Amino acid sequence: MNYKVVFSILGKAILIEAFLLIIPLFVGVIYNENNYLCFLIPMILLFIIGIPLTLLKCPDNSLYAKEGFVIVSFSWIVFSLFGALPFVISGDIPNYIDALFETISGFTTTGASILDNNGLEQMSNAVMFWRMFTHWIGGMGILVFVLAIMPTNNVGVMRVFKAESPGPSASKLVTKLRFTARILYSIYIILTLIEVVLLWAGGLSLFDSFLMAFTTAGTGGFGILGDSAVSYSSFVQVVIAIFMMLFSINFNFYYLLLIGSVSKAFAMEEVRAFLILTFTSTIIISINLFLSLKNIYTTYFDALKHSFFQVMTISSTTGLFSTNVDLWPALSMGILYFLMFIGACGGSSGGGLKVSRMIILGKSCTADFKKLLHPRSVVSSKFEGEIVSAETERNVRTYFIVWLIIVIISTLLLSLERKFNLLTNFTATLACINNIGLCVNVVGPPCNYLAYSYFSKIVLSLTMLLGRLEIFPILILFSRRTWKKY
Amino acid sequence: MNYKVVFSILGKAILIEAFLLIIPLFVGVIYNENNYLCFLIPMILLFIIGIPLTLLKCPDNSLYAKEGFVIVSFSWIVFSLFGALPFVISGDIPNYIDALFETISGFTTTGASILDNNGLEQMSNAVMFWRMFTHWIGGMGILVFVLAIMPTNNVGVMRVFKAESPGPSASKLVTKLRFTARILYSIYIILTLIEVVLLWAGGLSLFDSFLMAFTTAGTGGFGILGDSAVSYSSFVQVVIAIFMMLFSINFNFYYLLLIGSVSKAFAMEEVRAFLILTFTSTIIISINLFLSLKNIYTTYFDALKHSFFQVMTISSTTGLFSTNVDLWPALSMGILYFLMFIGACGGSSGGGLKVSRMIILGKSCTADFKKLLHPRSVVSSKFEGEIVSAETERNVRTYFIVWLIIVIISTLLLSLERKFNLLTNFTATLACINNIGLCVNVVGPPCNYLAYSYFSKIVLSLTMLLGRLEIFPILILFSRRTWKKY
Repeated sequence: MNYKVVFSILGKAILIEAFLLIIPLFVGVIYNENNYLCFLIPMILLFIIGIPLTLLKCPDNSLYAKEGFVIVSFSWIVFSLFGALPFVISGDIPNYIDALFETISGFTTTGASILDNNGLEQMSNAVMFWRMFTHWIGGMGILVFVLAIMPTNNVGVMRVFKAESPGPSASKLVTKLRFTARILYSIYIILTLIEVVLLWAGGLSLFDSFLMAFTTAGTGGFGILGDSAVSYSSFVQVVIAIFMMLFSINFNFYYLLLIGSVSKAFAMEEVRAFLILTFTSTIIISINLFLSLKNIYTTYFDALKHSFFQVMTISSTTGLFSTNVDLWPALSMGILYFLMFIGACGGSSGGGLKVSRMIILGKSCTADFKKLLHPRSVVSSKFEGEIVSAETERNVRTYFIVWLIIVIISTLLLSLERKFNLLTNFTATLACINNIGLCVNVVGPPCNYLAYSYFSKIVLSLTMLLGRLEIFPILILFSRRTWKKY
Repeated sequence: MNYKVVFSILGKAILIEAFLLIIPLFVGVIYNENNYLCFLIPMILLFIIGIPLTLLKCPDNSLYAKEGFVIVSFSWIVFSLFGALPFVISGDIPNYIDALFETISGFTTTGASILDNNGLEQMSNAVMFWRMFTHWIGGMGILVFVLAIMPTNNVGVMRVFKAESPGPSASKLVTKLRFTARILYSIYIILTLIEVVLLWAGGLSLFDSFLMAFTTAGTGGFGILGDSAVSYSSFVQVVIAIFMMLFSINFNFYYLLLIGSVSKAFAMEEVRAFLILTFTSTIIISINLFLSLKNIYTTYFDALKHSFFQVMTISSTTGLFSTNVDLWPALSMGILYFLMFIGACGGSSGGGLKVSRMIILGKSCTADFKKLLHPRSVVSSKFEGEIVSAETERNVRTYFIVWLIIVIISTLLLSLERKFNLLTNFTATLACINNIGLCVNVVGPPCNYLAYSYFSKIVLSLTMLLGRLEIFPILILFSRRTWKKY
């Protein structure tokens, strides 16, 4: 492990967080809320730690996969540890473990909250802004942000980028790394601003429009209201649903559109699969709901709207809700659980196992099955026009199985507590590892995670981090070989 | 596809079933039940079809993997189609779909039943014998039985054996196939007889002792009584639990004991893993139950006994029950669900994904994880002292993922029906694909599958067959290339 280079990049990330805290501080000034200290104290702490680290001299600049992983997981942990302070100091979430849970849930764009209606109403605008802003920061990746604005000549930085990027292989969007990071952020900012305008036009206040755009853009799921999106107008709900969809599409798609390759964009296998999957699910669920014996929705439009919203909230791993799905029939619930496993596209701000990973998984299984029947035939599977290497196939399968093992362990650990039943614990785990956060099969009324013990909250926080960072950067911290000096 | 050789072996299997039906016929004679016809009619039909098939001339005797798979799946389907007739003709299960469900559940040793207490009480001894006997036949494999008693010089028959054997790779117990088949059956018969004696000593009638030994030996799960094993004495329950354990251990273990290699037997990785897993689970569950707030069991002995019974019934994929587990706390339920996924050892009469497969899966994931951290290192995993080939690893992973896909599809298909909730449908699928059959989260009171629609029963029957034959022999039937003539 090359400690110096790790700490030097970490130092840059720490300073970035200090600067990010200026924005909610500014919001507090605008609203004259007198809660400067809750942002100033963590800022000062971050400067005190960050500045010496950035001044570290690195004689050896080499960065390998290991360092990449460690930098990524450390940055996220440090961001969360300090990002929780504003909640504690302001007194909005007085308990540090609760605040940490909320912050990790924010940065990982999970959206699992320990706040009830009361807690949300009493929160100051500045702290609420910070809460929702964590989603927006985490959505695109902390280090992508660092890389986008920090000058660096280190070629090994690609490894850091690779370690943080979601999906089976890092995007080959453009070869130059900083250029890529900037394009990604430009697309992200533009889409967010368009959503702000639409929500504002839909009747939300400008401030609320920004907050809801943050939660959608990061595919987070924190709501401003205790009932998430239930009380919004149909127009606002549909806008949110459409943008949840847009933010869970691989950003390569938009890049291709920008440079005019429309046909290439729509030929993207992952995007097509994602759209086919979500639209088919929406149609089936809406029919299932409309024909349901319980007559939950009286008009087909209502059934369709809520189907679309819920399919998108789960596929994009956002976790907002427009209706109580606990009343839905088994088939609709089954499809939602199925979508919970898959998640969004790689290279988007959404989480989950990723559509691309599932496509590669499916194709390689089909190829193996063919090989079993015709042992001498040569079968290789293609994805996005390229042959999938044996290594990628192995990695995807390993990822999937390790992911399953974590789901099982986390569910069992939550079950040590005797408060909730197995299904609730399983669903909470699934909602956290895939960064969805939604409470299906209600986790403590009114849909929040407060009722879990501190132990369970720590388990779930770790699960969220494992999910957002795609497991390996966190797991590697537990290997003794990682910590050996060169 | 070499149709002639497929049909000729199938013909032999058909004749074997005709001879097997003599035994329940004989039971009917002993009890003077006057229901000869329900066995005679299928016997005559089987002779009419079987004899011409066995007389087929096969100029080309070659058998490849494809033929092996097709013979196995055809034999099981034919056995089930005719095996259901006694239930229909005797009037004990007048509906053919229900009878077929019960028969497939019997042969696949699932033990999912559509009979309620009333139906069980009215059943004649001869038909009840046939019902339980299907478990015993299916436990060791229909074709292993055929191979054990039929003379053949065809070397390709090994492929048939391989296609039917449970676990990741066919047992290399002894090189000579018929010798292997006979040794397996000898161990099977001896263990069954010991259990009969113990159950008889425990106060069951001799007839009931045979029936319960059949259901345990095949790790089936049909009960004679509506409450399964709840009303039996502690002694009988413990005997059943121990034999469920014995029958879910790889039979190589007993072979090694028989030839005196005790240390080699206990060095078997799969057996050790199975015992450690089940004993640890038993201890944890018993403590969890005893400390449970609900005070379900008053003495620790009771908690321990029921933990042991339920862990063994699920690990062995038998599916008998000694208590109502729906009342158990989340942790205990979580462990049971976890065990449901794994199942018994390969090379035993138990079902499920198999312990050996899970070990290989776990080891190959660990190796891949190491490779990810140290890309240039060479990591290979070992199982039972031998290096696991890349091909075996691939097959195991593919199997696991295809298995998961089937679980999802089956759960969704069951959810088309609006009678049960998602968890029930998921559990029923899991219970059927892993040939457990147990109703956790009750499938229609009093714990049976009668309430499902015919469509769902067919889905579940197919799921049972897929699970018992380890997926590929059934899937291959749906591939057009299978049916091409050479």
